Amino acid sequence: MIRISEPTLILDKRRCMRNIKRMVAKAAASGTRLRPHFKTHQSLAIGEWFKAYGVTAITVSSAKMAQYFSAAWDDITIAFPANILEVERINRIPESCQLNLCVESSETVTFLEDNLQRPIGAYIKVDVGCNRTGLTPEDGRIDAIAESLGGCKRMAFRGFLSHAGQSYNAGSKAAIAAVDRRARDIMATLQARFADRFGVLETSLGDTPTCSIARDFTGVTEMRPGNFVFYDLMQYQLGSCAMEDIALVVACPVVARHRGKLVIHGGGVHLSQDRLKTETGADCFGRVAEVANHGWGNMVDGLNVSAVSQEHGIVSGPDELLDKYDIGSVVLVLPVHSCMTAHAMRCYRTLDGETLLHLEAEYPRSTIRSAESLPAV
Amino acid sequence: MIRISEPTLILDKRRCMRNIKRMVAKAAASGTRLRPHFKTHQSLAIGEWFKAYGVTAITVSSAKMAQYFSAAWDDITIAFPANILEVERINRIPESCQLNLCVESSETVTFLEDNLQRPIGAYIKVDVGCNRTGLTPEDGRIDAIAESLGGCKRMAFRGFLSHAGQSYNAGSKAAIAAVDRRARDIMATLQARFADRFGVLETSLGDTPTCSIARDFTGVTEMRPGNFVFYDLMQYQLGSCAMEDIALVVACPVVARHRGKLVIHGGGVHLSQDRLKTETGADCFGRVAEVANHGWGNMVDGLNVSAVSQEHGIVSGPDELLDKYDIGSVVLVLPVHSCMTAHAMRCYRTLDGETLLHLEAEYPRSTIRSAESLPAV
Repeated sequence: MIRISEPTLILDKRRCMRNIKRMVAKAAASGTRLRPHFKTHQSLAIGEWFKAYGVTAITVSSAKMAQYFSAAWDDITIAFPANILEVERINRIPESCQLNLCVESSETVTFLEDNLQRPIGAYIKVDVGCNRTGLTPEDGRIDAIAESLGGCKRMAFRGFLSHAGQSYNAGSKAAIAAVDRRARDIMATLQARFADRFGVLETSLGDTPTCSIARDFTGVTEMRPGNFVFYDLMQYQLGSCAMEDIALVVACPVVARHRGKLVIHGGGVHLSQDRLKTETGADCFGRVAEVANHGWGNMVDGLNVSAVSQEHGIVSGPDELLDKYDIGSVVLVLPVHSCMTAHAMRCYRTLDGETLLHLEAEYPRSTIRSAESLPAV
Repeated sequence: MIRISEPTLILDKRRCMRNIKRMVAKAAASGTRLRPHFKTHQSLAIGEWFKAYGVTAITVSSAKMAQYFSAAWDDITIAFPANILEVERINRIPESCQLNLCVESSETVTFLEDNLQRPIGAYIKVDVGCNRTGLTPEDGRIDAIAESLGGCKRMAFRGFLSHAGQSYNAGSKAAIAAVDRRARDIMATLQARFADRFGVLETSLGDTPTCSIARDFTGVTEMRPGNFVFYDLMQYQLGSCAMEDIALVVACPVVARHRGKLVIHGGGVHLSQDRLKTETGADCFGRVAEVANHGWGNMVDGLNVSAVSQEHGIVSGPDELLDKYDIGSVVLVLPVHSCMTAHAMRCYRTLDGETLLHLEAEYPRSTIRSAESLPAV
């Protein structure tokens, strides 16, 4: 039985290690560098588990995360359009850490070249269909930025980086595989087009659905999945993982019981507000896992976290299932999106009793210090 | 101009003070105690602003918040179904602090009476139509719990507490006023029904829409709105506040520009994932405010935070409006739900340059300490 008194993020390290090992093996078999995205766990302690499998390079999504992880990693890519307002923070990261940034405009390249005080690697961000950031492959600005990077002293042009995030809406494993194929084709075409001018540039891709469903990564320089370390209900629904791969749950106290529902302490500030749709079209903010001997087992069919407010969660279902949960018992909630849940909870408790901190708990005043160093509004 | 380098929560103290003053005056004119809900700001520093207007009693939504605020407040109600797993934490709150809990089951009353080591006040939670927690007014369990409380030594029966949260879906100011009238009627009827047995019990109500729209609170013992200290887009859409009452924005760096959109550093982990619908039915995760001389002015019609992922926000709109924002400039985002945004950001920067901490920044290891004091899973 899980013993907690308030909402607590419980981590099954064994499942995590298995998830890491599987992805490392797939990358190794393909001759592709695995550069896992650490925005999912944001924990130096969990980062060490990747080192155990030989991972040496990582991805993050902000300068703050790069600064945090530079204490233990010396090859970091910030897979987010470079924020020129943070150039001072970027300059403070030790040069012993190879740092790569993403650019998608000439303004950013010019500003960085003028203001960087350390060398960095630069990737051009390519939009392979996600339509969030990056330049479409036929956009002439790619050529202009590449030329401009070619003439930089601080910035070394490394290649092309993209995120096929449309895989999350693809709808089937076959459709996800098609997203993956198209993204790889686009990147290979770019690589070929610029080979005469720049030699063999890198291609960096990666999101958990395509990386989980692909048999291998052959032909891609590096892959950057992140979520696979924990997986979650969204990945399960997409077919990226099995139920037994989901490596975390939020343990939530039951505080009230009524016909057809439990009220739990576990709301939007714990689970996050990411949602799926159930088969009946209802909102789903989490599902309930059975308590098992050492951790948790299968999902309980029929129970659904149907609503969250700030601190409250509502577990809906038939009374015969809800009757198993007394006031003062604990419901184990499988999260919809583990990256957001981990960020909200900021602290992990492993099944073995270890406590692991998230960047947001270890480094809580970064925002404050940074604000204080700037002129008043 | 607002000078920041990463997503930063900016607070206009002048607007906050005006919002507090207005609600205090309405409560005073009605002879009703204002017990503001501090889950919105969760800051000891901002709590002091309420003291300046004579507020002496507060509401919170967890034992953790009660523990945090007990450093400065001696009359606290936890308006959340009492979590019996946290009885030790409740016992650790000094007796010099009057503490009130909410109960909605006999099991909880029995457990607390047996395990409390300090006196507390108890409210029976009544469901006045929100359908989240509490007992409906005709539920016979109310009588049983009242009798049971009447015989308790640790728990003093204070009265009835409810939250007419259905006001958020009421759709018009007239409908919100009707929700308010119905809730007050239910509470007055309960008060009258139990007067012979228990004397004049308290009635505690309150949510920001009804409290903002009501002309007065006559007949209600206490009101517990929380969000009014900051307000937000949701309250503006409901008619609870004017645009110039919204007291916070998230300042977000512009990191990329494309046709029809800006990419900002400001995602779900900053703004929260609460959303509204625009007039055209699109998702809205925030709106953009004009930069003004000292702070911000009106909402820019036509610009909409149309999507958020973990760290990214997308501001959509016509290019002639977006053209005003260069890469490296700052977009001021009015949040949809300020309670969730403040919780996500965990630190306020006032327009006067003060830095104020949120519970989650001041008290970051509470979860950790609590987990460590428990047996291993």
